[in-house]
Amino acid sequence: MEKIYLGIDIGGTDIKGGTVDKKGSIIKELTIASEVEKGVDHVLERITQLVKQLKKSSGKHYTIAGIGLGIPGQIDSEKQILLNSPNLPLFKNIDVPSRLKSSLDLPVVWDNDANLAALGEFTYGAGKEVSEMMMITLGTGIGSGLVLNNKVYHGCKGFAGEFGHLTINPYGPQCNCGSRGCVEAYAGTNGIIRTFAEITEKGTKTILNEKDMKNLTPKHLSEAVAKGDQAAAETYKQVGFYLGVGLAGVVNLLNLEMIVVGGGIAKAGDLILDPARKAVKEYALRDPANILTIVPAALGNRAGLIGAAHLALLNAEDH
Amino acid sequence: MEKIYLGIDIGGTDIKGGTVDKKGSIIKELTIASEVEKGVDHVLERITQLVKQLKKSSGKHYTIAGIGLGIPGQIDSEKQILLNSPNLPLFKNIDVPSRLKSSLDLPVVWDNDANLAALGEFTYGAGKEVSEMMMITLGTGIGSGLVLNNKVYHGCKGFAGEFGHLTINPYGPQCNCGSRGCVEAYAGTNGIIRTFAEITEKGTKTILNEKDMKNLTPKHLSEAVAKGDQAAAETYKQVGFYLGVGLAGVVNLLNLEMIVVGGGIAKAGDLILDPARKAVKEYALRDPANILTIVPAALGNRAGLIGAAHLALLNAEDH
Repeated sequence: MEKIYLGIDIGGTDIKGGTVDKKGSIIKELTIASEVEKGVDHVLERITQLVKQLKKSSGKHYTIAGIGLGIPGQIDSEKQILLNSPNLPLFKNIDVPSRLKSSLDLPVVWDNDANLAALGEFTYGAGKEVSEMMMITLGTGIGSGLVLNNKVYHGCKGFAGEFGHLTINPYGPQCNCGSRGCVEAYAGTNGIIRTFAEITEKGTKTILNEKDMKNLTPKHLSEAVAKGDQAAAETYKQVGFYLGVGLAGVVNLLNLEMIVVGGGIAKAGDLILDPARKAVKEYALRDPANILTIVPAALGNRAGLIGAAHLALLNAEDH
Repeated sequence: MEKIYLGIDIGGTDIKGGTVDKKGSIIKELTIASEVEKGVDHVLERITQLVKQLKKSSGKHYTIAGIGLGIPGQIDSEKQILLNSPNLPLFKNIDVPSRLKSSLDLPVVWDNDANLAALGEFTYGAGKEVSEMMMITLGTGIGSGLVLNNKVYHGCKGFAGEFGHLTINPYGPQCNCGSRGCVEAYAGTNGIIRTFAEITEKGTKTILNEKDMKNLTPKHLSEAVAKGDQAAAETYKQVGFYLGVGLAGVVNLLNLEMIVVGGGIAKAGDLILDPARKAVKEYALRDPANILTIVPAALGNRAGLIGAAHLALLNAEDH
């Protein structure tokens, strides 16, 4: 029987689970609602059921040898507890793998979801030829995970990888984290919408009307650019510039070979990546800038799931 | 016989050499002029003579088991050549260890001097209890070396650790590297002098007269602060703030346990470190900021020498 691994990506809305083989191919995938408001025990029970279903449906040729969990929050790597998660507020100070192990009778390992997305892209996706990379996920917030010397880098307590909160202007706009001028304050959803408002207020023309403006998302802006919208194009140019300024700093500090960009906003593609690449050339030192490539993610929204399964595989190989 | 290692720190003016035991204690130390203008062969011959003198004077109880070299420039870790060094302009594209090995008959290893200072402080100095740290050297420029997971971190080609060129304001002052708003543009010597000029131009009082101003150095400013100078005190407060904004970004990205601060300007001590600590609390995320300590270097200007000898020791243990 071939050994396979089960990846689980826990989000505030959905829990995605999937069985993944050693080549990173998904064998079977299932998604259920998280129902996080019903409490920790309820969510853990749902995960247990999800795992049992996946076990049953994975077929006779396979045996599940371990489980990897991705969690959207800060895990204290020393104490092995989830310190906090904005999307799973009830999971404070919980050792999720221990709680699951008792009902699942399989080794369970976990990591932050951004780290696991980076591990997935590094092992099977855009970064499989490199040894040093960062994966960033552009969305409401900016998640990121670092792979240094071929391993996910956690820092001394597991908090590393907060690229979204790199300060690129100490007098810049307010960020969700309470600080100012973070990359996320420019290139997260709020930053993008604010930039668009500033640009149109200054008189740059847009095809979007007042009704559109009320529920504006980065997706609307991408669509507007496709229709030739000047203000939307200028917005992505500015946002990409600030993203690139932040990446330039990371490149100078870490001499990475690759930045992999995923998440909803990354769908804007070169609209945002080209100005970012230009800013890296402008703000990073020549030698590290010349080595770096900035590329779109290859595994889409399955990077976290595949990375979680791969973490389980790595854990099995260690033992 | 006890095995000891020889560290060499090559600078534009002096070459420092020293024999170092396994506990990081210097047994014998010598300094000679670099005479870099006389060419590569001349400098290499001087190093060979320095090594021979140190060998002779290290006594009968010791045997030198290897040599470590610190170089102030960018070493391509893949090709093992010195790409460029502002202080050793004639050493372009040279594999220095290979050139020395033939005349010395001992294993020779090398690294960038900032990396070796970090290795020295990490192994025997301020950072000996931590696993993740950055050492920064404040002077005309800002050098830095990273220790991640208990090892010096080089990045994919050896260019990592350029903290001085982290952008903290894309519209900030011009930096020596050609970019704008780097940490060095605020907290290197030029940045400090410029800040002092801006502060006095705005009318803040100073005890320094026009003659002092002409050859002003950060040391003069530290002395002026000790005498109660308002403008000099405000200068260090601002410079420390910008240094801290840069460090906050590094802390968010890498979750380091310690920043070790050395170099001439670090003699200003808490004058510059206290505002930096305050800015880290303000600009970094709470959890990583709470873990971090910012401390003065412990090994003074011998950190590079001791680190170089330790690199030779690590190399011997690997073989």
